[in-house]
Amino acid sequence: MPLSEFDLIARYFAGLTPARDDIRLGIGDDAAVVSVPPGRELVIAADTLVAGVHFPLDTDPSAIGHKALAVNLSDLAAMGAEPSWALLALTLPEADDAWLAAFAAGFGRLAHESGIALIGGDTTQGPLTITVAVHGQVPAGQALPRAGAQPGDAVYVSGGLGAAAAALALRQADVAPDAVQACRSRLDYPEPRVALGRALRGLASAAIDISDGLLADLGHLCRASGVGAEIDVDAVPRHPALAQLAARDDAAWYDWPLAGGDDYELCFTVAQAAQSRVEALAESTGVALTRIGEITPGKGLVCRHADGSAFRPGAGGYQHFVRQSQDG
Amino acid sequence: MPLSEFDLIARYFAGLTPARDDIRLGIGDDAAVVSVPPGRELVIAADTLVAGVHFPLDTDPSAIGHKALAVNLSDLAAMGAEPSWALLALTLPEADDAWLAAFAAGFGRLAHESGIALIGGDTTQGPLTITVAVHGQVPAGQALPRAGAQPGDAVYVSGGLGAAAAALALRQADVAPDAVQACRSRLDYPEPRVALGRALRGLASAAIDISDGLLADLGHLCRASGVGAEIDVDAVPRHPALAQLAARDDAAWYDWPLAGGDDYELCFTVAQAAQSRVEALAESTGVALTRIGEITPGKGLVCRHADGSAFRPGAGGYQHFVRQSQDG
Repeated sequence: MPLSEFDLIARYFAGLTPARDDIRLGIGDDAAVVSVPPGRELVIAADTLVAGVHFPLDTDPSAIGHKALAVNLSDLAAMGAEPSWALLALTLPEADDAWLAAFAAGFGRLAHESGIALIGGDTTQGPLTITVAVHGQVPAGQALPRAGAQPGDAVYVSGGLGAAAAALALRQADVAPDAVQACRSRLDYPEPRVALGRALRGLASAAIDISDGLLADLGHLCRASGVGAEIDVDAVPRHPALAQLAARDDAAWYDWPLAGGDDYELCFTVAQAAQSRVEALAESTGVALTRIGEITPGKGLVCRHADGSAFRPGAGGYQHFVRQSQDG
Repeated sequence: MPLSEFDLIARYFAGLTPARDDIRLGIGDDAAVVSVPPGRELVIAADTLVAGVHFPLDTDPSAIGHKALAVNLSDLAAMGAEPSWALLALTLPEADDAWLAAFAAGFGRLAHESGIALIGGDTTQGPLTITVAVHGQVPAGQALPRAGAQPGDAVYVSGGLGAAAAALALRQADVAPDAVQACRSRLDYPEPRVALGRALRGLASAAIDISDGLLADLGHLCRASGVGAEIDVDAVPRHPALAQLAARDDAAWYDWPLAGGDDYELCFTVAQAAQSRVEALAESTGVALTRIGEITPGKGLVCRHADGSAFRPGAGGYQHFVRQSQDG
C-alpha cells in the first residue's frame, strides 16, 4: 500500500473529536500548538495497545478505538486531571476502510464524551499497534499522586472489579451468555473514571487506576507512598455479573477482582477525617465507592477475610503481591 | 517473557535524560505533571518508527534510539520550538539487555544534547515499534507554521540533502565505501536542526522539516500556504558525499536530494526584505543555508535547471509533485 494512503487516514480523524479554544494549531502541521492557562499544570501519559497482547484479536475495531483512548483517559482520571488533547499513533497492516471507520467512531465517541481533542499523531504501516498520548490539566499542585497515602487512611475502590478478567477467562466457555457478554462489554469498552478523578482532588491522599489488577496496583501505590495496606478480600466490590459466573468458594471469585487487570476503576486513599465526604461523592457522581481496607505503617499487603481469618491466594499468580500475614 | 520484565525496562530509562525544573512529577506515576511558564505555548508532535519500514532491520539499536527521538525533535525544530519533554512508547519482541542498553544510550545522548527530558511512556511486548511524543515551547504566537509563505518569498534549505536516500539505494552496492558510510551515518543519526529552527522565529514566514523528501515537503508547505514555488534543481544543496556516488547527469543526482526522504533538514521561506538576515544566521548557527527558489502565486511546484531550462523528473516517483512547467 502506498504511503499516501496513510496520509488519507490522518484526514479520517480530522473533525472527529471536539473543537477546543486552546488549540492554536491542530492536525496538519509539523506539530500542534496549544496553550495552558496560568495556574494550571499539565498531566501527560501514553499507553500502547498491541493486538493479541492487550486485546483479543477478535475485538471489534470500534472497541479498539474506544479502549486505546479509554486506558489513557484512565491515567488522567487517576491524576484528577481534566482531559484536553490527544495524539494517536496508529500502526496498521493495511488501510481497511471498514476497520478504520469503526475504529475512528469508537475513538471519536469517547473523545466527545470526555472533551478531549485529537491534535496530531502519526499513521504508519506495520503490525497493528496503537499508542495514544493524552494531556490533561489540573490546578497547579493538585494532581493526585501515587505517593501520599498515610497509615490510617481508608482504601477505597470505585465501581465493581473482575469483569474484564472473567471475560478473558470465559471467552470460550458455554455458560451464562448474558453475564459473559456483560463482562465482555467491560473488557472492550472500559469507562474511565474521569469525573470521579476530578472530584477526588483535595479529598484523596493518593490514587491509582486499576489496570494491572487491584493487588498489583494497590501495591504500586503503597510502594510509592512507603506504606502497606490491610485489605478485606470479601469487601472488594465485584462486578454484578460475577455472581452468576463464580461461586463464593471458587478461586475465581477472588482471582478475578484481586488479580485481574483491565478494570480501569480507581483505587484511592482518604484520611480518616475526610471519610464522611466520600459518601457524598458517591451520591454526586453516581459511582459506587467501597471501603476495602486501611493503610498500615508496615510494608506490603495483608489480605484477610471479613471474619478476620487469613486469605490464602489461589493459583491466580498474585501470591507475590501478598505479604505473609501474621496469623497465616 | 513476564510483563514484569517490561517494568524493569522503564527503570532502564530513569535518569538517562536531563533533569528539568519544570517537571513536578516524572516517570513512575500514572502520568507526568509539568508546568508551562506564562506567555509560552506548547508544541506537541508524535512520530512512529516501525522496524523494516522506517529503518533497515540491520540498524544499530543505538541509531534506532537516536533516530526515534531525532525525527520528533525535527518536528519541534520545524516549529521553532525549544525541546522540553518526551514520552517513549517502546514495543519490543523481547527484553534483550544489550539491545536495550544501546537503544537507551542513543536516545539518552541526543536527549542530553537537546535538553529534552523523558517523563513517561509505556513498554510493551510485540513487534518492534517505537513511538515518541515530544513537547516543546515557543513564546505565544511565535511557532513557525507551514502556512505563511507569500509570493516573492525566497525558499531556503539547510545543510545538504540526499545522503539518506543514497545510503538506502547503495546499501548492497560495492562502491566508494567511505562515501556510502558517510551517507549511512546521516540515515542512522540524523541531526535535527533545533538551534536553527529556534533562530528562524520571527524570520521565516513558513517552515517544514524534510522527512518525506524536498519536493513532497515543500509541496505540503505550499498547499498549506495556498501558493506555489519555482525551484532551481541545480541549486539544491547536495550532501558532499553525493559527488562521489552519482554523476551530474545521473537520475540519482536529482532523485536523491529532491525525492529522497529522511534528511531532516529544514525547508523555509523568508520575505524579500528579511533575506539579508539569512546570511548572518548561517554564520551564527554554522549551518549552510541555501536559497533554492522562490514562492509564486500559482499553485504547484515548477522545477528548472540553473540555465532556466525545464527539469524533467526521472523515475524517482516524484513526478506528481511537479507541475508541468510552461516551457516543458
